[in-house]
Amino acid sequence: MAEPLVLTLSCPDQPGITANVTGLLFKAGGNILEAQQFNDRTSDRFFMRVEFDPGEAPVEGIYRAFSQLAKTFDMQGKIAQRDRPRKVLIMVSKFDHCLADLIYRWRIGEMPMEPVAVVSNHPREAITHTLLADLPFHHLPVTRETKPEQEAKVRELVEETGAELVVLARYMQILSDEQAEFLAGRCINIHHSFLPGFKGAKPYHQAYERGVKMIGASAHYVTADLDEGPIIHQAVEPISHADSPEELVRKGREIESRVLAEAVRLHLEERVLLNGQRTVVFRS
Amino acid sequence: MAEPLVLTLSCPDQPGITANVTGLLFKAGGNILEAQQFNDRTSDRFFMRVEFDPGEAPVEGIYRAFSQLAKTFDMQGKIAQRDRPRKVLIMVSKFDHCLADLIYRWRIGEMPMEPVAVVSNHPREAITHTLLADLPFHHLPVTRETKPEQEAKVRELVEETGAELVVLARYMQILSDEQAEFLAGRCINIHHSFLPGFKGAKPYHQAYERGVKMIGASAHYVTADLDEGPIIHQAVEPISHADSPEELVRKGREIESRVLAEAVRLHLEERVLLNGQRTVVFRS
Amino acid sequence: MAEPLVLTLSCPDQPGITANVTGLLFKAGGNILEAQQFNDRTSDRFFMRVEFDPGEAPVEGIYRAFSQLAKTFDMQGKIAQRDRPRKVLIMVSKFDHCLADLIYRWRIGEMPMEPVAVVSNHPREAITHTLLADLPFHHLPVTRETKPEQEAKVRELVEETGAELVVLARYMQILSDEQAEFLAGRCINIHHSFLPGFKGAKPYHQAYERGVKMIGASAHYVTADLDEGPIIHQAVEPISHADSPEELVRKGREIESRVLAEAVRLHLEERVLLNGQRTVVFRS
Amino acid sequence: MAEPLVLTLSCPDQPGITANVTGLLFKAGGNILEAQQFNDRTSDRFFMRVEFDPGEAPVEGIYRAFSQLAKTFDMQGKIAQRDRPRKVLIMVSKFDHCLADLIYRWRIGEMPMEPVAVVSNHPREAITHTLLADLPFHHLPVTRETKPEQEAKVRELVEETGAELVVLARYMQILSDEQAEFLAGRCINIHHSFLPGFKGAKPYHQAYERGVKMIGASAHYVTADLDEGPIIHQAVEPISHADSPEELVRKGREIESRVLAEAVRLHLEERVLLNGQRTVVFRS
Repeated sequence: MAEPLVLTLSCPDQPGITANVTGLLFKAGGNILEAQQFNDRTSDRFFMRVEFDPGEAPVEGIYRAFSQLAKTFDMQGKIAQRDRPRKVLIMVSKFDHCLADLIYRWRIGEMPMEPVAVVSNHPREAITHTLLADLPFHHLPVTRETKPEQEAKVRELVEETGAELVVLARYMQILSDEQAEFLAGRCINIHHSFLPGFKGAKPYHQAYERGVKMIGASAHYVTADLDEGPIIHQAVEPISHADSPEELVRKGREIESRVLAEAVRLHLEERVLLNGQRTVVFRS
Repeated sequence: MAEPLVLTLSCPDQPGITANVTGLLFKAGGNILEAQQFNDRTSDRFFMRVEFDPGEAPVEGIYRAFSQLAKTFDMQGKIAQRDRPRKVLIMVSKFDHCLADLIYRWRIGEMPMEPVAVVSNHPREAITHTLLADLPFHHLPVTRETKPEQEAKVRELVEETGAELVVLARYMQILSDEQAEFLAGRCINIHHSFLPGFKGAKPYHQAYERGVKMIGASAHYVTADLDEGPIIHQAVEPISHADSPEELVRKGREIESRVLAEAVRLHLEERVLLNGQRTVVFRS
Repeated sequence: MAEPLVLTLSCPDQPGITANVTGLLFKAGGNILEAQQFNDRTSDRFFMRVEFDPGEAPVEGIYRAFSQLAKTFDMQGKIAQRDRPRKVLIMVSKFDHCLADLIYRWRIGEMPMEPVAVVSNHPREAITHTLLADLPFHHLPVTRETKPEQEAKVRELVEETGAELVVLARYMQILSDEQAEFLAGRCINIHHSFLPGFKGAKPYHQAYERGVKMIGASAHYVTADLDEGPIIHQAVEPISHADSPEELVRKGREIESRVLAEAVRLHLEERVLLNGQRTVVFRS
Repeated sequence: MAEPLVLTLSCPDQPGITANVTGLLFKAGGNILEAQQFNDRTSDRFFMRVEFDPGEAPVEGIYRAFSQLAKTFDMQGKIAQRDRPRKVLIMVSKFDHCLADLIYRWRIGEMPMEPVAVVSNHPREAITHTLLADLPFHHLPVTRETKPEQEAKVRELVEETGAELVVLARYMQILSDEQAEFLAGRCINIHHSFLPGFKGAKPYHQAYERGVKMIGASAHYVTADLDEGPIIHQAVEPISHADSPEELVRKGREIESRVLAEAVRLHLEERVLLNGQRTVVFRS
């Protein structure tokens, strides 16, 4: 088998899209390994993801034919290598459970990424000592005054390292609009509540005060409008009156870790397509 | 075994409450069947629920001794028969899935209630024809102008029937503050969203617009502040981008039905105690 | 829009299947409304489901072209009307919660079926009196001796009514191999445990004895090998040490009802394809 | 506040147990912080757990009084320090996700234990290199022939280190009956299936073959009868036809990690009481 590729696209819905896309791959000698599509009837928009073995012929032919087709159907889309680990930059503040989880998954070969940098506004000593090992760590402290410079350094780092995704793994700083714009579509945040409930600070304490019976976490793309970006994944767990805010925080760590890991995995596997303020998520 | 009783109480926390309560029951010849307690460390308040067989001696002794103890410890509490079905008045508008579920559970002997009236602002024909059978049905239409009278009729009905609990089973009318006050602590509503997300009208459409990945329902005591009463029970189910608002409504029906039924059962079994704007729920 | 159709197929995997199927529909003037496919890499078998608007041209052309394609690719498949309610025969013994749930869903227009008969080995009085209304009810008692005749009557009824699906909604009789064979692929059973745990009788009591911490239910196609048919859907709920066998039965009713309803809906919408002893389930 | 204690007990049920236990604590000047009890009506056995502040008086008085009471009521029970981290020995083979999870939780102060040794039948290099840091590691390889000696070494290690709990964190060796006996009541295993389904080897492959729609994990006390010990905690996650055995293994790692961590936490907090082949679990 040649190196598998993954094609993702969205376009205005009309007859023949699937036939044309799959026909193109078939004529080029490709073989579909996995495919999903979604017709959004409220927006009349079409979404597709195809994993395929391109076959023996040079892949340039497929790229060219798809580029042609994209014009015809007004598609936004791309073809990418399926199995190449994506470069990821992880940002963290003091609570490092999401970082720990992502890194462990990567170390055992489960998370298809190459971590190119870990950035924190806290010094290396604030991070649980066994986590980083030889991962490149950058301490970029931030105050209200130094925020523009600090964010500029992050942008430099993204460019130097070629990071394709920035993961805010409990990075407790609000990004400027400029930074959010710079990272649009390639920055995932974990919010430690079940959005849209309990936006803002201390969501577990908010949840405790309100007396809810479940808590959750939400992984979403970062936008200028904090806590409002397109949601990729969410999960919840039941709680009871006997759970103190501290116990909610403990239970929350587990939910946050797995919600973020799942969202990152889905993104890295090109399974998440933007649909306005919402997402289309093609699970296998 | 004598007829089992259930004692519920709350009071400021201090040493000796459990010892005194259980000592009282023991001295009176009672036997504890099930007991739970909770010390709320944030409010320093104590909550307790005890199911007990009062034994052979006249129960008046227990009532008297408890009344004495309640004064000493500044308790709010009561002793009730455990197995007497509570009288329930159910209110509904057009969507009758919660009504159907509650009534079926009652018919097969699972819900410990005696439905004394079904009230709707829609006529009997609006209700699925097989549900009501010989249940007393009251059509009490309501407009902005007639709301005070309609609510007065509901109050009358509550008093005439001796209803101990009013269940708003998808009753799509906002109660006046006066009505909410009248029913305080004895009226449960099902809100078709996972509060505090998506308050107000059309929560499934709101959920669709926001692109969340789970939907839920919340059963809560009714207060003057709509959608803000103490929550008794909540549940959620995962959804995907492919779920239209109509499919969310369908999935929601199932969640609403079981969340409301669970909350009603818990209330009827005297398992829900108020703790300010929150609840203490003693499951078995 | 013309009346939507749904095409389902499975065949040995090979390049070009999707391109040919969707090309066929496109050429015929059809428009895909929803499509899913699955390449089973362990069996090298391909599965597909396509909902489509056939367009203006006569549908015979599509049927003919698909029939041709099916030969080429060695497909098992069919084209069916998407929105025609399927005829369903429901069998029940004494516990009628699954029956109640299915019928209510049908009455409010949620379950795309036409119930053509309700069959019980118990008399009509054993069924909760408000459920059946004017549904055709057949009391077909069964003993060890009369089983062959009773099953023959069921087969007759299936043929007379044109039932396309038989639902065993807590029908507590084991079908003979002959009957299972007769109903192969068109008979769904709800087993009141999380298969493969607790096969056989009294699964909730088995679960209690074993001290498990969750209980569940499984909806599956009926095969001669009892409790071993291909599973369509399963769900579980947490339980605790405090749940008596009776409480497990109560909690189980809820799980059984929704697991069976979901499996029946999936089947009626042609979303379940057989894959040996397993199923492929194409949710929207 | 004095150092909190935790009292756990079980005994034949009879009137007055709670009154006597809580009366004892009250008279000694203690204050209850959290209490749960359970009357098992099938076995007529009573279970209780009380966290309490013993107050100013010497705790010997409480120990003595309880010892007296235990005789009167034929109790099995003990009083332990609530906040002293318990000594834990962790055993692992090649898959170290459960080990990683337990150790991380301990490092951030969430798991109330003191890991006194990590034992593996594989060499240190088989363990993900960042996990162990300065934790005492023991490579104790095992073959069929050397099993008795290897198990003897484990027993020695348990005694030398004073380990109060042995956690089999994906330790893929079956313990001898002798070893199981030695560790009775103080050894927790994680089984990578939802018991009682899929006992034995390769449970995820068994689950795939059977075509189930959910997979799970079970944490249980080790007994001589493999996969049959009293279950402490279980959890499941939904899967689909599209999940290969490898994906089930990946999803399973997450479930296993959190099920084991929860069971270990419950045990360390003295929240799990044995009830024959079942457990009573007193969550807060």
